[in-house]
This record gives sequence, C-alpha cells and structure tokens, in this order.
Amino acid sequence: MHLETLLWAGSGADRRGYPGAVDLLEQTLLPLREERLLVQTVPGMVDAIWRLAVRGAPAIGVAAGYGMALGVQELAEGRSVTADAVLTKARATKQTLDAARPTAVNLAWATGRVLAHLEGLHTRGADGPTLVAETLAEAHRIYDEDRASCSAMGAHGARLIRDGATLLTHCNAGALATAGMGTALAPIYTAAAEGKRVSVYADETRPLLQGARITAFELQRAGIDVTLITDGMAARVMGEGRIDAVFVGSDRIAANGDVCNKIGTYGVALAAHAHGVPFYVVAPRSTIDRNLPDGRAIPIEERPAEEITEGFGRRTAPHGVKVYAPAFDVTPARLVTALITEVGVLERPDAAGIAAVLS
Amino acid sequence: MHLETLLWAGSGADRRGYPGAVDLLEQTLLPLREERLLVQTVPGMVDAIWRLAVRGAPAIGVAAGYGMALGVQELAEGRSVTADAVLTKARATKQTLDAARPTAVNLAWATGRVLAHLEGLHTRGADGPTLVAETLAEAHRIYDEDRASCSAMGAHGARLIRDGATLLTHCNAGALATAGMGTALAPIYTAAAEGKRVSVYADETRPLLQGARITAFELQRAGIDVTLITDGMAARVMGEGRIDAVFVGSDRIAANGDVCNKIGTYGVALAAHAHGVPFYVVAPRSTIDRNLPDGRAIPIEERPAEEITEGFGRRTAPHGVKVYAPAFDVTPARLVTALITEVGVLERPDAAGIAAVLS
Repeated sequence: MHLETLLWAGSGADRRGYPGAVDLLEQTLLPLREERLLVQTVPGMVDAIWRLAVRGAPAIGVAAGYGMALGVQELAEGRSVTADAVLTKARATKQTLDAARPTAVNLAWATGRVLAHLEGLHTRGADGPTLVAETLAEAHRIYDEDRASCSAMGAHGARLIRDGATLLTHCNAGALATAGMGTALAPIYTAAAEGKRVSVYADETRPLLQGARITAFELQRAGIDVTLITDGMAARVMGEGRIDAVFVGSDRIAANGDVCNKIGTYGVALAAHAHGVPFYVVAPRSTIDRNLPDGRAIPIEERPAEEITEGFGRRTAPHGVKVYAPAFDVTPARLVTALITEVGVLERPDAAGIAAVLS
Repeated sequence: MHLETLLWAGSGADRRGYPGAVDLLEQTLLPLREERLLVQTVPGMVDAIWRLAVRGAPAIGVAAGYGMALGVQELAEGRSVTADAVLTKARATKQTLDAARPTAVNLAWATGRVLAHLEGLHTRGADGPTLVAETLAEAHRIYDEDRASCSAMGAHGARLIRDGATLLTHCNAGALATAGMGTALAPIYTAAAEGKRVSVYADETRPLLQGARITAFELQRAGIDVTLITDGMAARVMGEGRIDAVFVGSDRIAANGDVCNKIGTYGVALAAHAHGVPFYVVAPRSTIDRNLPDGRAIPIEERPAEEITEGFGRRTAPHGVKVYAPAFDVTPARLVTALITEVGVLERPDAAGIAAVLS
C-alpha cells in the first residue's frame, strides 16, 4: 500500500551490505512525478535533507543513520582501516549531517545513536572492520525499529478513531515522513485497515505544501477519503463541526510535553482547543528531547524567503519585501489531548508523564 | 500616495458624465504588473468582480454602483428613454451584478441603493433622462462617500495605534479594497501620516494571496514597514509577542456583531484571543446587514478547487483530489475587541451596540 520512502540499496544477497547507497523517493517532485534519488555520499545526503527530498522527522533520522554508513563507507574501501579512524570519520560525519536541519531532533538522535554504538564497541576493543560493519548494522536497526514503531503507534492511535470519523491533519506525518506507515497517519491507516470508515481533511501547509503535495498524494494512493483545504480554512472547518479529532506529528517534544511541529500546527491546536476537538500528537519516543525543559528552548529553523515569495515557480510577492519564515512552531502541552508513542497513549502530557514514557 | 483602485472615466470636463467606463487597476496581475482595465459593459463588470480584478468589499460596492450606470448607459443612447424603461433596466442590471459574488453585502447594498434612489425619483414623477443622469450621480455619491468613510475610519482607528506599534493584518482591506485609503489599513496609513512609527505583518492569505500580492505591495509602495508571513505563521508570531494588535476588514457583519471576512480571519481571531492581542475590525456601516441576526445566516461563497490545487500556474496537488474552498469565514462577535466604522469605535460589539451604530 505504501511507497518506500527510503531504503538502503547495498551489495550482498539481502542488499543490506556495503558498498551501498540510499535509495530515496525524491519528494520535492511530488505529487506529479515519482522519481527515485540514489544518494551515495554524505554531502549528497545533507543536500537531500536540506532540500526536503527526504523529510519528516523519523525519515530524517533513518536517512541520517544511513548517512553515517555512507561516511564510514568511504574509509572501508582500504579494508585495513583502524578502529580509531572509523571513530574519527563517524564523528566528522555526524557533525556534517547534524547541521543539515537544526530543529529535527531525530537527526542528531540517529547520528548520536550510531556514534555511541561505535564508541561502546571501540571501548570494548572492537577492530576497524567490525566498527565499519556495525555502522551499517546500527543504521539498519534504526530503520527496522522505525517501521515497527510506526505500526505500534498506528495500533495505539487507532483505538481513538471511531468508525465514520473525520480527522484533520497538518503537514505530512505519513508513510512518506517515515520508513514505515507514518506517525500521525499511522492510526488512520490502521483504523482503515480494521475496516473503519475514515475521512481526512489535509491542510495544504504553506510554504512548502507538504499537505497538498504529499499527504493528499499518499492518502489518495492508499484509498483513504481526503479533502484538501488551505491552512486558513482549518478553524472554519472545525467551526462547521466537520472534524472529530486532529492528528499531527512532531519534530521535537520538550520534557514538559511542549510540541514542536511544522509551522501552522500551533494555530490548528488553538482552533481545536476552542472547538473542543481532541488534538493528538503522534511521534516516536526518539522525538522527545529530555534535555529541553520546555518549548521555549527549542531552536526554530528559518527557511529562505523565496519559499514564500516564489514558492511555486512564479513570484507572488513584491520584490524586496521583508519575509519572516519560521519553519516550525511550538504547541504548549496544555493544548495536547494525548501524545501517542510506540509504547502507548499518554493523556494530557506533562513532565511526569513524559518521564514515564521515556523510562 | 495611493493608487486609484477604480474611477469613472467619463465624458465632460470633469470626466464624470456619460458615456463612460470604469477604469480599474487589474489586481489579478499584482504585484508584478500594474495594468489598468477599462470596463464598459455590465457583463464586463461581473467578470471583473468575479475574477477579483476589483475586490475588497467597499471597492466592490463602488464598482457595482458604477455597474448600474453602465447598464443604464446602454439605454441612454436614444435620449428618448422612458422612466419605466430605466427602472426595468436598472432592476435587471442589479440582478446580474448581485450574482457576481454572493457574500459581499456591499455589492447588493450599492446596487440596491442606486435602485431605491431611482424608484424614489420615479415615484415623484421624474422623467427618463433624469433617472439616467441620477443613476450615475448616485454611483458618484457612493464613490465620494467611500473615500470620506475611509478617511473617517482611519482617523478613528489611528487613536488605537501607539507610536512604535507592530500590527498584523489578513487579506487586503487597504486602499486597493476601496476607492479611498482602505478600511483595515486606513488607521495604519493615518497613524503613519501622524508621524507614528508603525510596522505591519501581512498574512499572505491563501488561496489567492491578497496579502502577499496586494497588501505587501501597497504598504511597501506607501513606505510602511511590512513583513510577509504565511497564514499558518500568525499564531506563532503572536506567541513570540511581536504583535500589538490585529486589524482586519469585513465583507459582511451580522446584526449581533459576528464578522464575515476572508477565509483565515477566524483562525487569526482565535490566536489573537488566546494571546490577549486586541482584534479590531474596520468596516463602513454599509457592511452591516441588519437582516442577518447572526453569522450563521451569512451565505459563504465557495471558490473553484483550482485556486488551491493550481493557484500559482503549476499544479501543486494530486489530480482528482477533493477540495473544500470556502472563501470566507465568520468570527463571532465575542472575539472582536472593537468595530471601527466611519462614525467611531464600538467596543465589544453586540446587537445593542450595532443597532446604535446604525441609528
């Protein structure tokens, strides 16, 4: 049912070995063209992440894990690589990858996880070739866990969806934002697979139109009833009583439950709150950044002005106009009805609840 | 300082007589091209209103008044026209014009005003040529009153703007939405003319980008500091404490103070309310429809799906996707801090206050 967002295209019978490359769906061309992109280098991966050829917090994490493997792969050709050299290369690769998008905690989480794994092995005396092999093995584990995690979020979240429900989502936190069936859309896919009738309103999500280009595309492809609206219509649609619940993903969650997600999410949360519509956030635990006490500490990436002034190939604003373009916003925890992770549903998330989810 | 949104280009020394045409700024080409459109027929005016070549509730009213003159002008060439024939023609013209955009009360208000004026004269025995002349004269009075009304709203509203204020607006309720200096932007222009430093955040206002194309253009042209954001950024910008007040216009106001305005306004109002930011509606009294008890009774025009799916010359959503495209929403009166009309500032508008404004 779902397109493969990204996968490792490597050597060997199971195509999971070195030498390899990352085979991505080039999402900037959706919905009109489906093309694959073969990423073979770390700079190529940085470029793919920055251009949003691969996007969505979990998918970025998986891509970054494989990015570490691409970096280490450069060393591996000599075979006589030392463990120290692998660690040095892995550290440099992590630094390069982490700078691609500063807000997505999954990026630094995934590169950090691979690096920590290598450091642990190094401490226990593993040799260079082992570290090289384990870089890719850990990246594969991130991939496999992401798929399992999506399915688990889908199962937990589907319990919150009744037969005949109409839901609203913002941006794309679907299959194309993960290596699996998605985060925010996973409960919707699961509910549909269970035979429930489900309809979805998708915010187009300016400036980059992930809702129009990607969410509408993947829901339509999956046979789920989807209606496209502009971001400014969400409050009206809720006011008309059309929406039973909102499901969104997240790029980073603070220790108190504040949720960073695509710009526009906060306004949707305020509208949902005003109308008594449940507002659900669906994200794997790797999205939680326990080092951030609250949402004010989350760094907010700014995107280029041209994504607003000429985002569609044609200039739609006067030359020289100032633009403010935060890519994300923060929804305070008090507006979140429940946080759905791979381990279950946390109602009314707060610091204590988040700590429990992480333990 | 301001561009002429529309004016009558007629014969005679003052260019205010028959035969004439309406000289419009073709707003669909903004901000990159400034072209004038000469409208000489009623169908041409319906087309200009429907295509949004002229838009903004007050400007639509002025255009509709002149549209009545264009209709009657067709009869006038014979000179021997009867009073009955003028009335019949005026009634048919009103019907044609009113259908162009059902939500804009100013349209039917203006055509109704011209028609009522003619009916009154007819009852008092005026002849055909007098009615023909008075059609245009009444249209000119609507134009003149709109300009005066904008200036009055500007003066009343400017008192609410402190030196150094940063304001937010949605859509375009500026000079280009009226024959004068605008509604929502009139207080801003007036405050700036009084020497106050004023900055404005302009929502781009999907789907048709009146904020990006028109508000940013006219504020930049007027030398007022303007920053463009997407609609989904408004809540974030308020949450960052950047906004001192919101100023918007209106297309129709119900007798209880509920405000119909461009889609997205309601979400801005909810965000303003959540942040304690004053939410001001600026509109002439002709925008108030005393026959509508509340906002639920306001008919909401739906626009073509293509304005969302291929609004920028390039398709940005999958083929066949369903679209819901209400052009307006309704902000309940309880979210309105004050209504500013040409007669003053009505705080916390309600049915009694609205009745007082109208009397």
